[in-house]
Amino acid sequence: MRRYGFAIGLIASFILSGVAHYVGAPTFSPTVQFLISAVSIVFVAGFLGKATESVAHYAGERLGGFLNATFGNAAELIIAIFLVKDGMFDIVKASVTGSIIGNMLLVLGLSVLLGGLKYKEQSFNLKLAGHNGSLMLLAVIALFIPAAFTKSLTTNETINLSIIVSAILIVAYLLWLYFSMVTHKDELSDPVVEHGEAAWSKGTSVLFLILATVMVAFGSEWLVGTLEGFSHQYGLSELFVGAFLIAIVGNAAEHSAAIIMARKNKMGAAVEIAIGSSLQIALFVAPLLVLVSVLFGKTMDLVFTGYELVAIGVAAFIAKSISSDGKTTWFEGVLLLVVYLVLGIAFFLV
Amino acid sequence: MRRYGFAIGLIASFILSGVAHYVGAPTFSPTVQFLISAVSIVFVAGFLGKATESVAHYAGERLGGFLNATFGNAAELIIAIFLVKDGMFDIVKASVTGSIIGNMLLVLGLSVLLGGLKYKEQSFNLKLAGHNGSLMLLAVIALFIPAAFTKSLTTNETINLSIIVSAILIVAYLLWLYFSMVTHKDELSDPVVEHGEAAWSKGTSVLFLILATVMVAFGSEWLVGTLEGFSHQYGLSELFVGAFLIAIVGNAAEHSAAIIMARKNKMGAAVEIAIGSSLQIALFVAPLLVLVSVLFGKTMDLVFTGYELVAIGVAAFIAKSISSDGKTTWFEGVLLLVVYLVLGIAFFLV
Amino acid sequence: MRRYGFAIGLIASFILSGVAHYVGAPTFSPTVQFLISAVSIVFVAGFLGKATESVAHYAGERLGGFLNATFGNAAELIIAIFLVKDGMFDIVKASVTGSIIGNMLLVLGLSVLLGGLKYKEQSFNLKLAGHNGSLMLLAVIALFIPAAFTKSLTTNETINLSIIVSAILIVAYLLWLYFSMVTHKDELSDPVVEHGEAAWSKGTSVLFLILATVMVAFGSEWLVGTLEGFSHQYGLSELFVGAFLIAIVGNAAEHSAAIIMARKNKMGAAVEIAIGSSLQIALFVAPLLVLVSVLFGKTMDLVFTGYELVAIGVAAFIAKSISSDGKTTWFEGVLLLVVYLVLGIAFFLV
Repeated sequence: MRRYGFAIGLIASFILSGVAHYVGAPTFSPTVQFLISAVSIVFVAGFLGKATESVAHYAGERLGGFLNATFGNAAELIIAIFLVKDGMFDIVKASVTGSIIGNMLLVLGLSVLLGGLKYKEQSFNLKLAGHNGSLMLLAVIALFIPAAFTKSLTTNETINLSIIVSAILIVAYLLWLYFSMVTHKDELSDPVVEHGEAAWSKGTSVLFLILATVMVAFGSEWLVGTLEGFSHQYGLSELFVGAFLIAIVGNAAEHSAAIIMARKNKMGAAVEIAIGSSLQIALFVAPLLVLVSVLFGKTMDLVFTGYELVAIGVAAFIAKSISSDGKTTWFEGVLLLVVYLVLGIAFFLV
Repeated sequence: MRRYGFAIGLIASFILSGVAHYVGAPTFSPTVQFLISAVSIVFVAGFLGKATESVAHYAGERLGGFLNATFGNAAELIIAIFLVKDGMFDIVKASVTGSIIGNMLLVLGLSVLLGGLKYKEQSFNLKLAGHNGSLMLLAVIALFIPAAFTKSLTTNETINLSIIVSAILIVAYLLWLYFSMVTHKDELSDPVVEHGEAAWSKGTSVLFLILATVMVAFGSEWLVGTLEGFSHQYGLSELFVGAFLIAIVGNAAEHSAAIIMARKNKMGAAVEIAIGSSLQIALFVAPLLVLVSVLFGKTMDLVFTGYELVAIGVAAFIAKSISSDGKTTWFEGVLLLVVYLVLGIAFFLV
Repeated sequence: MRRYGFAIGLIASFILSGVAHYVGAPTFSPTVQFLISAVSIVFVAGFLGKATESVAHYAGERLGGFLNATFGNAAELIIAIFLVKDGMFDIVKASVTGSIIGNMLLVLGLSVLLGGLKYKEQSFNLKLAGHNGSLMLLAVIALFIPAAFTKSLTTNETINLSIIVSAILIVAYLLWLYFSMVTHKDELSDPVVEHGEAAWSKGTSVLFLILATVMVAFGSEWLVGTLEGFSHQYGLSELFVGAFLIAIVGNAAEHSAAIIMARKNKMGAAVEIAIGSSLQIALFVAPLLVLVSVLFGKTMDLVFTGYELVAIGVAAFIAKSISSDGKTTWFEGVLLLVVYLVLGIAFFLV
């Protein structure tokens, strides 16, 4: 009974949200649009969380989390490709920065805090924690070096450096998938603790995960659309909107899925959604956007601004420090959120 | 018998030191004043160490160390508030820097070295080590971000950022106390190894700890007072005097207490005095001074100079690296002292 | 039989390489010289690897690796002293940088990767890993501080700071040897797993290790000599040639020895050759060169360029992250090599 109620709420709010988006003002005022979209995202998030959990039941926490993160990033990648085509490189980099720190600090922070309020100590695979930490460092280094050397380089040399580094990062990321999913799969997995029954069959689970991701993509777009007037009205800077508002609102559904996993004491899945997703953006999505931009004739470089690098560096160091022992407590969630808050205020004021 | 001798030496040297301070030159030459104050501090330090140990006997190593650190910092806070009132912000920041690196490098370094010469390997709570490391990183991040963003901000925006960050840090520090003293007290404590009898009863121990702290506050003030002529005579820079000389001399008694604990193989208490104290200064005392300055009408910002940030960052990274395994050896004490020495020489020359 | 073949190949190629070097063009074209030298280095590397292994059989993996690293660096030290005498400080610093990052990233990376392709997970002493990590941090700090403070210092003050810091680092390094070889020798050693018989007696092993090192020194010199025309022809920058080409070619033999150890699952020896060697260069060889330069009348300071510091810092952080758990996998080798590649491309373009 409760299940049908959820399905009806999900479908109804999703359709209403789409209608509000396409019909727009004046039939639907911005505030009404925002409220409808927000309600819809809550339902979609619940659907995505349930689908992730069901896939994780069959495929393990890590693979479930990985699929959730990958589908989520695929939607973002498509949007970013259109921005790259239009040469809006600064917005792309701001939103890449926002996704990286949003995942490492806000998503991980909320998951660790809310999971930690229920369980005294939560744990996930220690070896995965160590490898994740080294990969975060690689992401920081790979984004830092082009920025550090660009002053002594011509524009052309910077472009060349960006393209080569991007190609190297993509190869490294693919090797990481091969390593973590094939050669050392068992060493990096959490012990399976699941004993209950899955909500759906294997095929349905994967199908629903894909369907939920598509709904998340549209729902997020519609919700982000309601931000524009809002952010214009309050005179917010493009950097702040791109790196914080859009990242938070646009990823709300994925965020919820990570928190749902943490509240069920499945920190392996939560960490994979949060850290795995930010690593995928830094080491695969951003470099891929550089390579894709080559095809459009105007190449985007991999040089981030000083403030963006500070944000990414700071996020990576605190996330690495907190996750390095493979254990989390509620206070570590507070630490991550505090750093996110401090960064957010600094970006808001700049 | 030996005990009464100590009490007489303590009281006599303390009174003499006070008389020398208030009567001053020409009756007491600067050198004589310095010698009397130094002898008095040795006695007071012994008293503080004994009181800390006795409190630790009842309350555990961590709480004993925490009370020692807190009482010590309370005295420093009061002095700093007077400086803030007079608008001497640079001196306040130099002395905050000096207290942070003095505790992380000199106090911890001497404790680890001298403890390590007696015991091959000393250990303390591993989980506390991990949380301490993350908190040190938070301290570095929180002091680094205002400095990194200040160039793009107006004076007013910098002040606002400083006030908000300060408020956030104080909340985070209070949550840390709640976490480490209430919800996860047992996880972060050292196993009680004490079997001997305490020197004094519970009430007397706390009373003596407070009394010792008050004596330390006065004795340190008097000793620091003798530095002025000395530092003027040798043409030392304000930064060096504030960040090194005053920090060393003014904290001599607390330093001794940490070393006494380490020599008794109570590294938990020594680490709490050293690292706990520097965290308290970075995450509570410095932010509180910012908030207090608002009341005086002229707000102090949280922007430290580049050199101060280098010193704090370097200190935090090496202290985190050395303490992260919850074990210490004499050579790790050497490493901390080497970094302190290198910083001291660089500050001396600047 | 196979053994005699190797000995003949070693001696013949070595003599031929020397003849080609001293006779030079036009009898031996640059390409022929390069090929002969390269073949000779392969044989010499094999000899050095065998000698290291045999010494390690008697003295343990760590001491064997240490002797290999020390003999190798002794040869480099002698060459560098001649460069310092001629006032070629920039080349000396570039080659010091190249040796440090070459060992931390290329040698360690190849050892970990090629060892990891044979064994699923390799391990070495965990406590040594921790101390190595702290020492790497000390190296970064000690090279960073003179550069950070030099802007506010006169040339003379920078020289003084360099001399004092150098003296402190040498004392710290000697204390490290005393700590790791005397007071805590057993705690930092790998368990002896050797059961086979050594190739040679104890005395012969050490003698051969010294002989191999001398041959490596000459062979490397001759091979490096063939680079000059080559690098001139392609218009490579001095920084790139000094920090990458010479470091790779000049250390090829030591590199091979580390890989040979890793392929025999003796990661303790491989890590000692790689990280131990780079620590020795940063904390002993470079400071010693500063002190030696004082005797020549024109003092070399310890101020490295921003790019060199970025390279050393980045190398130390990723090497520390990867080695901190005392375990390695093939993917961690990939990570080290990726960072080396990215740095190499950046230095090539600058």
